[in-house]
Amino acid sequence: MSSNREIAERFIASLEARDWAAWAGLLHPDVIYEIPQSRERIRGRDRYLRFNQEYPGDWHLRPKVVIADEQHAVVWFEWRLDGRIDDAMVFFEFAGGLITRVTDFWPERYEPPSGREHLVERW
Amino acid sequence: MSSNREIAERFIASLEARDWAAWAGLLHPDVIYEIPQSRERIRGRDRYLRFNQEYPGDWHLRPKVVIADEQHAVVWFEWRLDGRIDDAMVFFEFAGGLITRVTDFWPERYEPPSGREHLVERW
Repeated sequence: MSSNREIAERFIASLEARDWAAWAGLLHPDVIYEIPQSRERIRGRDRYLRFNQEYPGDWHLRPKVVIADEQHAVVWFEWRLDGRIDDAMVFFEFAGGLITRVTDFWPERYEPPSGREHLVERW
Repeated sequence: MSSNREIAERFIASLEARDWAAWAGLLHPDVIYEIPQSRERIRGRDRYLRFNQEYPGDWHLRPKVVIADEQHAVVWFEWRLDGRIDDAMVFFEFAGGLITRVTDFWPERYEPPSGREHLVERW
């Protein structure tokens, strides 16, 4: 059985390759996908597959950090779309070698609040 | 020597307790703290300590998921401030039992784009 780390790495690699059979093969049929920022939930592998297949644009994903243990994994990845490059992260739960829950976060850029310039440098 | 998981858990617990000695004791003197969303960087334990001590408001932190391996850890946590409750995540790197790099993300809420209502439920 693949390690949770390997499954997490394959999740991103097969999405990037649009290898839908490989990607769907990592998921439990009753997988739950959630986006807490928009309070959206998708139930089941079939709907989640369709969500990704229908997602517009020529998006690309590159993993930056993968961390896994016996129950969970996370991938911090870079995504590119229409010249924009930003970070996002996806958390996983597993059962029996399949992904049972996916939660991802899409942080937006913001300007720093004032009052901490004496401690901070910008890049 | 504490495990990376234990260090990550203590990082959040000592921040929540405002136990600055315990918190600073987890950090390498040359720790780098980064917030990619605002492109802010703080160099060194002393400045990073001051940044947290000066951070305004009666904020509270509660860990939701901790994942660690030999090199990295992440804590997905809930933060509360002035009646707002949201998720954030902090990634760590380690050397010699101390935290050498901290990167955190503060995702904002957003309304879902249209066109996927046939797949998604809201909460």
